[in-house]
Formats: sequence, C-alpha cells, structure tokens
Amino acid sequence: MSFRIEHDTMGEVQVPADKYWGAQTERSRNNFKIGPEASMPKEIIDAFAYLKKAAAYTNTDCGVLPAEKRDLIAKVCDEILEGKLYGEFPLVIWQTGSGTQSNMNVNEVVANRAHVIQGNKLGEGKTFIHPNDDVNKSQSSNDTYPTAMHIAAYKMVMEVTIPGVEKLRDTLKAKSEAFKDVVKIGRTHLMDATPLTLGQEFSGYVSQLDHALKAIKNTLDHLAELALGGTAVGTGINTPKGYDVKVAQYIADFTGLPFRTAENKYEALASHDAMVESHGALKQLAVALMKIANDIRMMASGPRSGIGELSIPENEPGSSIMPGKVNPTQNEAMTMVATQVMGNDVAVSIGGSNGHYELNVFKPVIAANFLQSARLLGDVCVAFNDHCAIGIEPNYDGIKKHVENSLMLVTALNPHIGYENAAKIAKKAHKEKKSLREAALELGLLTNEQFDQWVRPEDMIGGLK
Amino acid sequence: MSFRIEHDTMGEVQVPADKYWGAQTERSRNNFKIGPEASMPKEIIDAFAYLKKAAAYTNTDCGVLPAEKRDLIAKVCDEILEGKLYGEFPLVIWQTGSGTQSNMNVNEVVANRAHVIQGNKLGEGKTFIHPNDDVNKSQSSNDTYPTAMHIAAYKMVMEVTIPGVEKLRDTLKAKSEAFKDVVKIGRTHLMDATPLTLGQEFSGYVSQLDHALKAIKNTLDHLAELALGGTAVGTGINTPKGYDVKVAQYIADFTGLPFRTAENKYEALASHDAMVESHGALKQLAVALMKIANDIRMMASGPRSGIGELSIPENEPGSSIMPGKVNPTQNEAMTMVATQVMGNDVAVSIGGSNGHYELNVFKPVIAANFLQSARLLGDVCVAFNDHCAIGIEPNYDGIKKHVENSLMLVTALNPHIGYENAAKIAKKAHKEKKSLREAALELGLLTNEQFDQWVRPEDMIGGLK
Amino acid sequence: MSFRIEHDTMGEVQVPADKYWGAQTERSRNNFKIGPEASMPKEIIDAFAYLKKAAAYTNTDCGVLPAEKRDLIAKVCDEILEGKLYGEFPLVIWQTGSGTQSNMNVNEVVANRAHVIQGNKLGEGKTFIHPNDDVNKSQSSNDTYPTAMHIAAYKMVMEVTIPGVEKLRDTLKAKSEAFKDVVKIGRTHLMDATPLTLGQEFSGYVSQLDHALKAIKNTLDHLAELALGGTAVGTGINTPKGYDVKVAQYIADFTGLPFRTAENKYEALASHDAMVESHGALKQLAVALMKIANDIRMMASGPRSGIGELSIPENEPGSSIMPGKVNPTQNEAMTMVATQVMGNDVAVSIGGSNGHYELNVFKPVIAANFLQSARLLGDVCVAFNDHCAIGIEPNYDGIKKHVENSLMLVTALNPHIGYENAAKIAKKAHKEKKSLREAALELGLLTNEQFDQWVRPEDMIGGLK
Amino acid sequence: MSFRIEHDTMGEVQVPADKYWGAQTERSRNNFKIGPEASMPKEIIDAFAYLKKAAAYTNTDCGVLPAEKRDLIAKVCDEILEGKLYGEFPLVIWQTGSGTQSNMNVNEVVANRAHVIQGNKLGEGKTFIHPNDDVNKSQSSNDTYPTAMHIAAYKMVMEVTIPGVEKLRDTLKAKSEAFKDVVKIGRTHLMDATPLTLGQEFSGYVSQLDHALKAIKNTLDHLAELALGGTAVGTGINTPKGYDVKVAQYIADFTGLPFRTAENKYEALASHDAMVESHGALKQLAVALMKIANDIRMMASGPRSGIGELSIPENEPGSSIMPGKVNPTQNEAMTMVATQVMGNDVAVSIGGSNGHYELNVFKPVIAANFLQSARLLGDVCVAFNDHCAIGIEPNYDGIKKHVENSLMLVTALNPHIGYENAAKIAKKAHKEKKSLREAALELGLLTNEQFDQWVRPEDMIGGLK
Repeated sequence: MSFRIEHDTMGEVQVPADKYWGAQTERSRNNFKIGPEASMPKEIIDAFAYLKKAAAYTNTDCGVLPAEKRDLIAKVCDEILEGKLYGEFPLVIWQTGSGTQSNMNVNEVVANRAHVIQGNKLGEGKTFIHPNDDVNKSQSSNDTYPTAMHIAAYKMVMEVTIPGVEKLRDTLKAKSEAFKDVVKIGRTHLMDATPLTLGQEFSGYVSQLDHALKAIKNTLDHLAELALGGTAVGTGINTPKGYDVKVAQYIADFTGLPFRTAENKYEALASHDAMVESHGALKQLAVALMKIANDIRMMASGPRSGIGELSIPENEPGSSIMPGKVNPTQNEAMTMVATQVMGNDVAVSIGGSNGHYELNVFKPVIAANFLQSARLLGDVCVAFNDHCAIGIEPNYDGIKKHVENSLMLVTALNPHIGYENAAKIAKKAHKEKKSLREAALELGLLTNEQFDQWVRPEDMIGGLK
Repeated sequence: MSFRIEHDTMGEVQVPADKYWGAQTERSRNNFKIGPEASMPKEIIDAFAYLKKAAAYTNTDCGVLPAEKRDLIAKVCDEILEGKLYGEFPLVIWQTGSGTQSNMNVNEVVANRAHVIQGNKLGEGKTFIHPNDDVNKSQSSNDTYPTAMHIAAYKMVMEVTIPGVEKLRDTLKAKSEAFKDVVKIGRTHLMDATPLTLGQEFSGYVSQLDHALKAIKNTLDHLAELALGGTAVGTGINTPKGYDVKVAQYIADFTGLPFRTAENKYEALASHDAMVESHGALKQLAVALMKIANDIRMMASGPRSGIGELSIPENEPGSSIMPGKVNPTQNEAMTMVATQVMGNDVAVSIGGSNGHYELNVFKPVIAANFLQSARLLGDVCVAFNDHCAIGIEPNYDGIKKHVENSLMLVTALNPHIGYENAAKIAKKAHKEKKSLREAALELGLLTNEQFDQWVRPEDMIGGLK
Repeated sequence: MSFRIEHDTMGEVQVPADKYWGAQTERSRNNFKIGPEASMPKEIIDAFAYLKKAAAYTNTDCGVLPAEKRDLIAKVCDEILEGKLYGEFPLVIWQTGSGTQSNMNVNEVVANRAHVIQGNKLGEGKTFIHPNDDVNKSQSSNDTYPTAMHIAAYKMVMEVTIPGVEKLRDTLKAKSEAFKDVVKIGRTHLMDATPLTLGQEFSGYVSQLDHALKAIKNTLDHLAELALGGTAVGTGINTPKGYDVKVAQYIADFTGLPFRTAENKYEALASHDAMVESHGALKQLAVALMKIANDIRMMASGPRSGIGELSIPENEPGSSIMPGKVNPTQNEAMTMVATQVMGNDVAVSIGGSNGHYELNVFKPVIAANFLQSARLLGDVCVAFNDHCAIGIEPNYDGIKKHVENSLMLVTALNPHIGYENAAKIAKKAHKEKKSLREAALELGLLTNEQFDQWVRPEDMIGGLK
Repeated sequence: MSFRIEHDTMGEVQVPADKYWGAQTERSRNNFKIGPEASMPKEIIDAFAYLKKAAAYTNTDCGVLPAEKRDLIAKVCDEILEGKLYGEFPLVIWQTGSGTQSNMNVNEVVANRAHVIQGNKLGEGKTFIHPNDDVNKSQSSNDTYPTAMHIAAYKMVMEVTIPGVEKLRDTLKAKSEAFKDVVKIGRTHLMDATPLTLGQEFSGYVSQLDHALKAIKNTLDHLAELALGGTAVGTGINTPKGYDVKVAQYIADFTGLPFRTAENKYEALASHDAMVESHGALKQLAVALMKIANDIRMMASGPRSGIGELSIPENEPGSSIMPGKVNPTQNEAMTMVATQVMGNDVAVSIGGSNGHYELNVFKPVIAANFLQSARLLGDVCVAFNDHCAIGIEPNYDGIKKHVENSLMLVTALNPHIGYENAAKIAKKAHKEKKSLREAALELGLLTNEQFDQWVRPEDMIGGLK
C-alpha cells in the first residue's frame, strides 16, 4: 500500500494514498483497533452529511463562510448521502466517547474530496476547504455528534421502525377482524379458562402495537431537539448570532423531519436523555413483540403434540435431522430481536447515566445501540409480517376440540348456582374425566335444559370488543 | 396461638383465630414462605380497597348487589384505606403471578370484617357477605389485580414521584438563576474546556428534570386505563352491561385521578405494557438523577484535593475513622436509588415480556418493582433537595482559580488566528507551565492588547441560556 | 415521645429516650427518609455483630483494648445475634454509600447497651465503651461495611441458597430416575420432535442445577476475602500489627465459614467484584430456574386444552371467578423470583462498576440486592420443591397419545432411506392427516415389516443418559 | 445477476450462480432480511468448520462415512478456516433460533465446494457429498450450533480476552511496583482521605484484573462441554456408538483446547447456562475495567482545573474546536466497551432463560453477544494498554500539593488524642483555612514536636501491600 503524509496539530501521519481521510482519522484507526473496522453506523455518517451541509448554509447566511465554500461542502455532503463515499469512514464505535474522531473523519473527507472535485490531486497542495476552520465552522464535536445521533435516530425510527410496526399492526388488525367469530378456549396461567374469540385475542396484539406506536411517537418531541449551536460546552462559543435556530431549520428542511434547536444546550451535550427516552419506548415495543411472537408460536405448536390452534406459513425446512419439520422461525427471529433490544436498553441507559460536567462521553455506544434496536425492530416486523403474520390461519379442528372439552365453561354457572357449586362440578368432571354436563347432572345441581341454556361458549365472549 | 377453621373449595384450613383472613389467604401463607412476610406492597392493598368499593357501587347500580351489601363492603374498604387493617394482609409478592391470592385476601378480609361489623363473632356463623359471590362480584383476579397495579402506580407517581421531582427542579432552577453570573471553567471529557456560568450548568439539570417530568406525564394516559370489567380473560364474562365504564368512573371519583376503562381488555390483562412504559420514564429520571448527583459531588469534592467549586451542606460526620470528614451522602443515596431503578427496569421489562395467551402472570413482581422505584425516586428527590440542593453554594475561590488558570480560553482565538495557531499557544503554555498570554506573546501570534480584547471568559459564555 | 440528648462531633441531637442508638443514627434517620424505615437488611446487622466481636477480640489480643471492654462488646454482639436488639437498627439502605451510618448505628448501640448492662441508665453519664474509640477500634466504615457484606452474603448463600437448590436438585434427580422409562415426545422450537424419556428430560434440569451449584461455589473463594484491616483507604492505618489476619480468623471461627483476610485491601474497599461475581452465579441459577419452571408448567398445562403430560399438586383454588381451576402457582413464584434476580443483577453490576478512587460508595444497594436474591432463590426452591416438585407425576394418557401420534418418529428412517425420502413421508402424513406408517406404505418407500423394525420410539432414546 | 436452480425438501430455489450455498441458505437470505447481511459471526463459521471436520473423522472411524468423503469434507473445512470462503456465509443472526440455517449454510457450502474441488461445475450434476446425509451425518443443528457456540466462545476467550487482560494486568503491575514509593492523598466518597502510595492504588487494579481472570477461568470448565452427539433432542438418535466422546476429542485435537463431551446432552441443547456463566465473568471484567478506566481518567483530569495527579499519553488532538485539548480517549473506549458488555449480559441472560423443552432457540443472539463482548474486552485492553497504560506517569507536582494540603492526615492522631479531639482540629483547620498544625497548636491539643512525630504521611501507608 502506498501512503501520503498528512498532518494535524500533533504532527505528521502516514495515510493510505488513495483515501480522502486525513491525519486525525488515521490516528484513530491506529489507536482504536477494537472490534471490526468501520463499525461506526453509516446512519451517523449520513447524519453528519446533513448537518455539515446545514452548517455550511447557515454559516454563509450568517456571513462567516463564502458561498463558494458552502457549495463545495454541500456537494461532498450530497455525495456522502448518495452512498458514494462510505469506504472513507473506517472508524469504530469504540473511539473517543464524544465521537470527535468521526466528526473529524467527516471534516477531513469533505475537505480532501472538495480538493479533488476542484481538480486537484489528493495530498498535493493546500486544500481550499479547511477541515476545522471551514467544514467544522461554528461547530464542535460536542454539538455535532449529538446532533448526528438525533438525526440518525429520528430518521431510523420514522423510516424503518414505525412503518414496520404499522405494517404488522395492520395485518394483525385484519386478522383480528377476519377471526372475529372463531370461538376458542381462553388460557390463563397457561391453563384452560373461559372462551373468547380468536379475533378478540388478536385485538390484544393490535392494541399492544398501537400503544407502542403511541409511546414511541410521544418521545419524538425530545428527539427532535438538536444540540447544534451549543459548540464546545453548550454556550455556543464561536457561533454567529441566530446560528442555532437557523441551522436546525436547514436540517429540518433537508431531512423533512421536524427538528428544532434544543431548548437547553447544556442538557443536549451533557445528557442523552432523549435517546434514553426513545429507546425506552423501543424497549416497550420489544416487550410487546415478545408476547405476540410467543403466543403465536405456542398456538401454532404441534403439529400433533402441541396446542395446534393456528397454522403458520412453512417457509423453510425446519430441521437438518428431522425430516418434514417446520418451525416458527419468524417468531424466533422476533423474540431474539426483542432480547437484543432489552439488552441494548441497559447499555443505552448506563451510557446515558454517565455524563459528567458539560459532556456525556458515551455517545457512540448509545448511538450504535439505538440504531441497531430501531433497525432490527422495524426489519423484524416486516419479515414477521411477510413470512408469518399474513399467512396465519385458524386450525379449526384444534380450536373446536379444545372449546368442546373445556371445563372452564363452568364459569358461566356462577351467577346461577354460585361459585362453590360450580367448582364442585368442575372438580368432579376433571377427576372422573367426564364432561361438565355429566358431572352437573350427576350432582343434581341443574337440569339438562338449564345446562343447554346457561353453558354456551358463544354467549361467554361478552360484548367487549 | 389459637385457630379457627375456615374452608374453601378445596377443604378446611386452620386460620389464626383473631385474623380476618380466610382459607385461601392462609393456604398462600403456608405455600409461599418466600422472603419476608407481608411483602405485597400496602399500596396494592389500598388500591384493592378503592376498586372493591367501586365494584360494589357499580354492582348495586347495575342491580346485581343489594345496597346493604354495598354499604358494608364500602365500610370495610374505607377502614382499609384508613390503615386500620394492614395487619390482615400477610401475603408476599412471590405468590401466584396473577395476584389471585391477594385478591382473595382482600375478599376474605372484607367478608369477615363485615361479619364482625354486623355484630357477629369472627368464625361463627355464615357471613352475610360472601368473599367470591359478593366482594368479588363481576370481577376476577385477572382484572382486579392489574387494575390495582394501575391505581397504585398512578397514585404513587402523582403523590410521591412527581412532587418530589418538582420540588428538586424548583430548587435547582432557583440556584440556576442565583448563579447566573458565576463564570466557571467548563469541563468536557473531565478535562478543562471553555467557560460557562454555574447558572448555565445548573440549567442543564433543570432541563433534564423538566424533560423527565414530561416523559413521565406522557406515559400516564396508558396507565389511566383500567382492566376492570375484563374479568377472567378479557371478554367481561359475568359482568352486567355497562359495568366496565361505570366502575372506572367510580374509581376515578374515589381517587380523584383520571382513570377510564381500558380500550382493550385483552391487552390490559395479558400485557403490562403500560407499566413497562411508565417505568421506562422512571428509568429516564433515574438516569438524569445519576448525572446530576454525580456532577454535584464531583464539583463539591475536596475539601483541598478535589475540584472544590461547590459547597454542600454538612449533615453528619462522614467517617468513623477520619475525623472532620464530610461526605456527599445525599448524592450517594440518590445514585444508589438510580442504580436500583435501573435494575428494577430490567425486572419490569422481563416480567412484562412474559405474558402468555390471555394473562401475564408476573403481575406482583412488576407491581412491586414499579412501586419501589416510584417511591424511592420521589423520596430521594425530597431528601436530596432538603439536605443538599437547597444548601448548595459556589466556592468562589475555587471557581475563580480554575477559570484564571485555564488553557481552554484559547478557543476564543480560533476566529482570529485559526485553530492551528491557537493550538500552538495552548500546547506551549501547557508544556512550559506558562499562562496563555505569555505563550501567545512569545509566539508572536498576537499583541497584549489583542489578548485582552479577545480572551475574556465573560464573553465566552454566549447568549444561549 | 420523650427524648434524650446525644452528641457527636457535629453537636447535639434529640434521640428517642428509650432507644440505644445515638446521635449519628438519629441524624441518618432524619436525613434519609427514603422508602420504608429499617430497610437495611438484618443480615448486615448480624454480620456487624460478628465482626465487632471479632475486632474486639483481636484488639485485646493485640494489646490495644482491655479485656473488660472486649467482653462487654462481645456480650452486646451476642445479644444482637440472638435477635434481641433488632428494633435498634432503624436505618435505610438509601443512606451514605459507604454504610458509615449503619456502622455507627452498631457502634452506638453497642456502647449504650453496654452502658446499661453495666447497670447504668441510658443517657446518664459517660459510657465506659466509646462508639468510635472502642467499638470501632482498628476499623473504619470503609472496611467494616464491605466485611459485613461478605459475611452476610456468604452466610446467606451457604444457609439458604445452596441448601434450597440442593433440596430441589435431589427431588428432581429422584424424579429423573423414577421416570427413566417413560418414553415421551420431544419438542424443539415448541414443535414435535423425536422422543426421549421423561427421566432424560428431567436429568437436564438436574444438570442445570448441578452446574449452577458448581458455579456458585466457584465464586465463594473471592467472597471469603474480608476487607477488615484495610481501615480508611486500604493501608490499614491505625491497626495493630497482624490485626487483619487475626480478625479474619476470629470471624471464621465465630461463623464457621472459611473467611480470610483479603489479598488486596484496596480492591476490597474500592470494588465489589466479589459480590458481582457471586451474584453473577446467582443470576445463572435464576436463568436455570426460569427454564425449569417454564417447562414444568407448560407440560402440566391443561387440564384439557394444554400439553397435559405432567400432573402437579393442587395447592389452592386457582381462580376467584373460574371454579375448579388449578394453576401452576409455584412455577409462577419461581419465575417471578428469577425475574427479580435478573433485575437485581443489573443493579449489583451498575453499583459495582461505580467505585471511585479508594472506595465504592454503592455498598448498601449492592448488599441489599444480593441478599434479596440469595434469600429468594433459596426460599423459592424450597417452596417449589415442597409444594410442586415432590408431587410431579407423569400423565401417562397424555404422554402416550403424543408419542403415538408424532410424525417425528420418521427421523429413525434417515439412516435407512435418507433424509429426503423420510421428509416425503412426514409431509404426506401431515398434509393428509395420516399416520407415518400409512404414508410410508403408500409412498412405497418401505415395507410394513421394515416400519415395525425401524420406527420404535423406545429405540430412539439412545444410550445417552 | 445469474442464477442456478437448487432444491431442498420444500422445492426449488434460485441461487446466485457463483455462490456455493444452496437452497436452504437462499431461503433464509430471503426470509430474514433483518439488519445488515452476513451478521452471523465469522467465529461461528470457523467453529462449524472444526466440528464438521471432526464429525467426518469420527463418522469414518465409526464406519459410517467413507474415508474419501471424510477427506473431501475436511479439505473444504480447512479452506474455511483459512478464510477463503467467508463470502459464502451471507446469513444473519436474526434467523431461526436454533441456527439451523447457518448449519445448513455450512453443509451446503461444503457439499458444493467439494463438488467443484472434484473437478465438477457448480450446479451441474449430483454432488458426491450430500449436505444432510454426509456433511451433517450424526448431527443435528440442535447439537452442532451449541457446539459451535462453545468452540467459538472458548477460542475467543483464550485467544483474545485473556491475553488482552493479562497484557494490561502486567503493565499495571509494573506500574504498581514503579510507583510504590509515591505517597499520594487517598480519596473516599470522592473526598480527601488518608494517604496511600500510588503503587498501592494501582495494586488494587491489578487485583481486580487477577480476580476477573480467575473468575473467567473458573467458568471455562462448563464451556468446555460440547453438545455434539446429542443430535435432535439430546438422546443421540442416529449417532454411532462412542461418537460423542470421540468427536469431542477430535475437536479438542484440532483446536488445541480441552473440549470434552457434555455430561448431560439435554442441558447442553436446552439451556445455555455455560454461556450465561462465562458471560457473567466477562461482565465482572467489564465492571472492573469501568472502575479502572474511570479512576485513571479522573486522576489525569486537568490539565489545570482537575485532579492532575497522573499524566497519560497524548495520542490525538482532543477537540475539533478547543485547540491543544487532549482527552482520555482510551478510557472512554474502555468504559463504552464495559457499558456494551453490561447490556450484552442482559441479552445473554434473557436469551438463556428462554429455553423450552428440549431446545433453547435463542442461540444466535446469545452467541453474537458473547463473541462481541469477548472480542471487545480483549481488544480494548490491548488498545488501552498500548496507548494509555504503558505511558502513565505520576504528576509529582500535583500529587505532592494534595498530600501536603490534606486535612485527613489528622486521622493519624486518633490513637493519641482520640477521634473527637482529632475532629476538632480538622474542623477548625477547614473552617479557618489553616493547616492542621496551626489548628492543632492553637487548640493546645498537642505540641509542635508531637505533630512532627505523629503526622507523617509516609508512616500512614501501612504495612499492607
């Protein structure tokens, strides 16, 4: 590999000759060989592109950056957003906790790429755009990285998480309506209970997802606050007047999302409570998905020795040794994702709790966990929807058998003969392996006609939706 | 100890002669000797009193319970709420996961206490009020326990958590204003950075608490939904028409809180996403308190070998061996509470994720963790406020010394001489243990007058609040 | 209430007249009204009694404490260990993070109680025993509290956790042997799989518990290290020569447990990695119990619409609305305990990670969570053992039906006709709701005799234990 | 892109023409588009290569696989281990929870690659090696994937984690010895305390790492147990006699690690307690590293307004806005890794607790989190060692100033004048901003000579190592 010499305030560094990054990026590469290269999420890089462009526009508007520089910076940012420069961001999550090195990575790439766009050769001559004085103008890592976190997180939630959940929610809602007359046995404590319809059961899942969506949306207002303009410690040192409001507006325009400048820049740099808050809602979604995926796989269990009340799509051979086996694999992916998100929530919270003075230096670990959670949740909802939920059908044979055999239909007798008499019937039937009717008649607690009239599963499902 | 005989559907049980509880409570006592007795939170018992009374009123309104029974039930519920019967609830958290046994504990105590109120002797004769058929009328453990969870949780958040946080927030806000002109050194990465005012620093804490309060309040709408009326599996079997809406209204009236019947009873029985959601916001608060308490104790560290920028009240001798030592003990209590809440959040989430079919049977563990978190957070905010925050004062000597010595004032020179030249000055000063001014002049990068004009801490604190 | 005046280095304090505690305890009571009173675990108080007595003996041996004082101190410590003085320890977990106030609570109670034992009146005259100079001699909170943590934790693990687990392990082992010939269907992914015996299945649970016991025991060596002798910062300032080794030996003698002085006192004060380590093993146990309790309740589910392969004891009525319902309540208690322990593990770890310089000030929260986990795990194993495990019986009807119907017996054909042909048989049988034999013969892939010879559940359970 | 047609038991699938994988891999690719492609850890693929080769050897030894097939299989496995085929494993973590699809991915690649090695064209003709009947012979996903987990985890711990920790431990130990005479102020509660040497302080870190190493090693015995031979449900169906012991021996030989067949195959398939156990120890290490990294960055804080007792290497410019700033970036990477590992521990535990019946289907999420933790911990120890620890030096000026000013030297007076008198001196000195000596003399509690004799920092550091 051939190298060129770059320098920064600490001296000279050898950089791969064909790479746009500079001295500080290369230092970070060498000093932080921790886990796989380039683990810093690409969504963060994209978010930086938005904000560097917005900063350039704002700086020009404020009269501190020539329009020519603005346009060059914006051009490179657009290239980043088109995905043309992803190979130029080799840094890892496990670097400085302010993300300074990734901020500088962007600054350096923009400066050097602009140099080349201007017709110069990489590494030859002084760049027209200076990484710090121009690309980073009116900025600090301390306000850019948290801004990038919010941009990336908000976008991911809007573009991946919410649409994925909504897709699944819509399918489950359609199923709930389609199954509204399928009377089945209820189960509490995993034990047989009074009946309900399969549609009612699924309506519970829909309600969980609706509540999760609402909870996520409730948190977005905080996530919409951008730190940019706070610079080094939140005071906005070295920013022109009006910069913070304006730069947030540019970011809102470029992303189409309702970003605004943070109410309090000290909070925005030193804490990441907005990320903790939104990830808390993602964790609630994970908790809901765990329940839904578990229920569906238990009801689909079998084919002959399980619960066997649902049929789910067969997507792939299920076993490398047991021929013909089909497994609830989408449910497994979904519960694994939920597990990951619950773990990530702890990482986000611990990171979030450890800000000190004017800065929280757990930014990259918070960002990476958040983005992973938001991505996985959205993706798994789509996969589960497309390869499982849309194909769920009742197994009518299994459902019918369970309702007919159930002892818990006895509950319908409480208002007529009292709880204790009803219990006697159920116990006798269970012990003697009889039907409820047989037990009831033998105990002389009611007549055959009364049984017909009172014990009707279809009347036990209530008027509640 | 003397005993009386009580019975339930499984047979006879010996119960302490002077206790109001009955057979099922006693069975639970014997079967679940797990941890200290009576660990089921008292707030849950109180919440049951509200809901049993509300159910009695609703049942009478619906024509399924005589007014005489309603009034007797209500009378005992009021006694519970007055704290007169706490000794009658010996059960533990670690019982059945539906809380059935605590529901029955309440049912039994109400029936037996009513029997005595009527002038009878405990254990003699048949009770006028039947635990299941009257006290539990139109109810199931499956809808009462989750209703009690929401009542208890909502009340605790409103009565303890939020007032505690608001009290502390108000004090910190007053401090922020009082300290608005105290220029101090900023710190990022724990390292010296550009200056800000102590008031600005404290405004970040205020903003964290304001955001936490908002996040908590955002979750209350879900917590206001009550499961009552869903009975066994969510269908509302054995409830009279209109019962669910009306009973929630009674609970709202009795508690003065905006409870309403749950949109979807299946969700309300089988998941506890509302508890997960609200506890997620409590956890965000914990994360914020960890930051605030850490900052304040670090700034108060010393007295001679620490940061020494704040003075906090001396409340107690700090060491059993080091005479005269005073420690930031309120901060320690606060960070320990934050730690507990972060652990509790995992327990709440795991419990919440494990509902199956029509019921989640991790109810008591979820309730207990939630109530502990909400209580501790509120209490510790008050203790911290009263014994630490209100007494915080700047240590002007320490603050002044740090600002004057700081090298990071050099940042003010970026717009004038560029980042790289500014860095040269800072490095020279650091290396040669000189002042910035000396280094700047020696390097010939600016004049003495320029230094005076450009490097002014009081001008570096920006216009940002 | 009447009061007496006590004083400490900060001045005078009013203390309830009849209580043995002194000024510093009372200050803590007033300053830390956080959660219920007296939440500091009693096991910590007991542990302090052991160590104060051991310190007194060692101090006398080292010539720095008169034997008369030693004997008085020891006498009060014995009273504490007899449980006579529990009302004298009103402090909460949420105090100073070093536990100084609880250390002083013990010191004060010992001094004042000794005063009374000597025939004096509480609050009158100077005590012969000084709380700091005698009871706390050669000690600091910084080494006593962590020593008390290890004593309390080690004792709880030995006396409650391990015996509880062993009891359950022994029962499950006996069940595994009793069920060794009960061939049942296996299930993977919750789906029907190849058969095994119920005894084999239970042997997996036994193995989990054996491994958990081994893991717990592996951690005890670290927990056996005592901080005592490190005093204020680990250097052992103000301790006589040989004190640390000797005092640990006394504690070992008094408790009958293999305590020894810590290899490194700085680690022992400033970190609680030993607690983190042991609690990690408790968490592994929780993970194992979650699996075991879940399996058993799923296999016992029904009675008519579940898996129905196991019968478990009926301990109490299961529902306040569904008569005759019996639930797996012990399993629910066990899984709730497991959930709590998994949450506690996060609290212990966060607390453990936050030591600074010479001291970790999250001691009480770590201790309280550890002791709760160890207690609950032991207790729930005993409850589950006594009220569930010992009564587990196979439901032979259910087991037989599932084995006979299973399609996964086809796996036995892989070596004879290959995986793909075997899959054809299974799929045809599933699709056409036929038996494997029918499908196999119709496909002409083997003869009736070959089927008899190759497909034998009892031959599919292998030679593995 | 061009495709070829592959088939499995469910029918035909289009596969990229130039890829070795087959139908089942392709199905998984299409059905699980969740997060970035190919996220299944490469270490798992390598581990599969070891075990497939070992299985082939064992099968041949047992007479069920021709040597020619064995050698072909082994040849492809060796190519995998040389890293030549990594592009052939496109699957994600978020697939079926048994990892079946990754097992089949390996089976298919081995079969197809062997086909090409034999001189055939990919996709033309029937492969000599059958993915299921040969490569997967005597195996199931259910025993191969957990075996791969243990191989990959054990190797990572031995090759990355432990050497990394040992390297750092050795450096800190050398520092501890080098700094053994540097007397500095101790700090407890972040407040000034009695002195110790910097060497003593560092010895605490060494002890933490030594204990963590021991804890990790304690868990390896469980991790050494391999599930292989259990096949579908743990019974070992379709394995030849002696297979399990022999195949473990081959794996031990190929890897050079002490693997052996699992004591109980049911535990080995249905639980992952060994992974939970070992990750628990990794989490303890994370907790220790958090303490160490925090201490060092606090002691290195400044340069002028912090604690300033240590000097650490300057590796990169610290700020994009504050010139000349140097930050403790290695400490930040280390604490972020610790944070991640603490989150991962929750994911591993939740996944581990959710096994059902004969299988735990959270295998890939457990494996991925474990391997990430083990890798990051090892890597960050090396990075921290090379770029921070080896360059740590005392800042003698700062250390000296703090010792001389300290009030806590007063502790040395306890044995001479009593705790209360000593406290009076400290309080007076603090309040009046005087030295201890001045305060002591003014109070007349001791003479100048006594002060010289009794208050000697170098005598306060004890005889404890």
